[in-house]
Amino acid sequence: MPGRRRLSPGDTPYDWREESITVADLGEFGLIAAIQALLPPGSPGPVGIGDDAAVVNAPDRRVVATTDMLVEGRHFRRDWSGAFDIGAKAAAQNLADVAAMGASATALLIGFATPGDLPVTWAEDLVRGIADECGRAGASVVGGDISSADSVVIAITALGDLGGRDPVTRSGARAGDLLAVAGRLGRAAGGLALLEAGSPADEFAGLLASHRRPRPPYAAGPEAAVLGATSMIDVSDGLVSDLGHVAEASGVLIDIETARLPDDPDLRTAGGALGADWLRWVLAGGEDHALAATFPPQTALPAHWSVIGTVRAGRGVTVDSASAEGLAGWHHFL
Amino acid sequence: MPGRRRLSPGDTPYDWREESITVADLGEFGLIAAIQALLPPGSPGPVGIGDDAAVVNAPDRRVVATTDMLVEGRHFRRDWSGAFDIGAKAAAQNLADVAAMGASATALLIGFATPGDLPVTWAEDLVRGIADECGRAGASVVGGDISSADSVVIAITALGDLGGRDPVTRSGARAGDLLAVAGRLGRAAGGLALLEAGSPADEFAGLLASHRRPRPPYAAGPEAAVLGATSMIDVSDGLVSDLGHVAEASGVLIDIETARLPDDPDLRTAGGALGADWLRWVLAGGEDHALAATFPPQTALPAHWSVIGTVRAGRGVTVDSASAEGLAGWHHFL
Repeated sequence: MPGRRRLSPGDTPYDWREESITVADLGEFGLIAAIQALLPPGSPGPVGIGDDAAVVNAPDRRVVATTDMLVEGRHFRRDWSGAFDIGAKAAAQNLADVAAMGASATALLIGFATPGDLPVTWAEDLVRGIADECGRAGASVVGGDISSADSVVIAITALGDLGGRDPVTRSGARAGDLLAVAGRLGRAAGGLALLEAGSPADEFAGLLASHRRPRPPYAAGPEAAVLGATSMIDVSDGLVSDLGHVAEASGVLIDIETARLPDDPDLRTAGGALGADWLRWVLAGGEDHALAATFPPQTALPAHWSVIGTVRAGRGVTVDSASAEGLAGWHHFL
Repeated sequence: MPGRRRLSPGDTPYDWREESITVADLGEFGLIAAIQALLPPGSPGPVGIGDDAAVVNAPDRRVVATTDMLVEGRHFRRDWSGAFDIGAKAAAQNLADVAAMGASATALLIGFATPGDLPVTWAEDLVRGIADECGRAGASVVGGDISSADSVVIAITALGDLGGRDPVTRSGARAGDLLAVAGRLGRAAGGLALLEAGSPADEFAGLLASHRRPRPPYAAGPEAAVLGATSMIDVSDGLVSDLGHVAEASGVLIDIETARLPDDPDLRTAGGALGADWLRWVLAGGEDHALAATFPPQTALPAHWSVIGTVRAGRGVTVDSASAEGLAGWHHFL
């Protein structure tokens, strides 16, 4: 359809209300056909989209499975993020959960509820973003469901394969282990703070992009499993908060050493501009989907894993050996 | 907590607004803990609820996966159905999709978005219903996600195992095959019509129960695969509509013979009472989650499979060899 604008990665969000063809115009099956046409060919199994269910290869004889919902107004705003980025982010948070088990993502299923007046281009860009992020992780979209609703809700399920390795759970950290992270921390929270302050200046484009679309280090998940990681978690609610789950499940104390946190000049600059504590974004900010893992003390880690602390006997999470109270992340209903 | 009323299967819906403890009172992690406490122990794999992702056994080396969303006001009304039935129905429609591939369901993941003022008992009863239906199908709840939203949205993903059999898709029907159904047809639509007409009389309790909670014949799915079914579909949108997908995918014509449809006195009585055509409920009503399958002509079928038609050369679906136009099922956005 000539003249219909499409978002690409890097484009700025557009005013979706300008669009005229709605999902109601297209109808359920029309929308499904439009979505299917956007997905790259090829399926990780014998049955893809279009039957009662998909059939996905699970060579390991075990399948990793996780699900997450994104609700408009809670997890994203259509005026702050473009559909492409929202789709990529929705996929990323599930694909990162698969990686955090030490698995490689294979397949994604999309539940999509939307008002009938949503422009078709918005739904299409959402799917493009999902497919693009799946491509980064090596997974394919194999199925989904579309429904009407008063606001947009995206429910994604990701599947993965362990490749013969044991899953890396939250419960295996042992006193003496190293704490390391792969991926970025605090950038999504910094970007969100800039948006909330109405300060989306050009110099902060990188942080805004990090808020709109996290870049989880998918390959680092299976890599950590191969390297002997004793525990691993996807940092989605905030480093302190998520490590709290590991500490609790493992029955250990985890200490973060702030001096060892990777430096991020963007965060320092934005913190200065907003009069905000950038370290708080790093410790308490969620949605970057870094991977945090613990490793036996002598593990030789590749450079993209930064050692940022240690595991000790005890309970809970400390920052520079002091209480981390007040640095818990964001919860629903609170 | 003494005095808090709980729904059991067969109870009538209650006024949820009477309840006082809300999910916002409990908080996200409190609600997760409450839900976990309701789920039967045991998991179909090495990692259940509580990590970044579940790990589910997939002995077949392939996994069947399907997802569906239920949106308040679109798929259910809290004043027409109790939470237990809504949960059971949400699970059933996914578990039936797994069965329709010829697979046995193994695991379920639940996405649950809700307003903060939802009574905790409602969420608990929903989970009880989901768990109860999982029990009917032999599956376990292995994970999920909770979010806040303006209305209740339930997104369920079901996984299943093929047990070494080929998946039964929609595309294998051949001219000469028998058309057969297992499970009930038209009862959910009849029950819905009674509710819409404000006629929930005692004599129709069975139909109302069928609307509130379908009873898919899960075991008939793998059974059909063993019996050599050439195609199969879960009847969710309506018999004619769903067989249309099979006819299209298989490149055949499917003829339904109304004289061979199983008699259902409840439907005849309700049709008479409402001045409605009960046959229309059977042919166009969805949500009963019967299984419709095609079999080679000489297949000896158990009694719970009713032969109701034949597959012929041609295209589309006919009823008694006449056009089935006007009997398409319910679609979103239309």
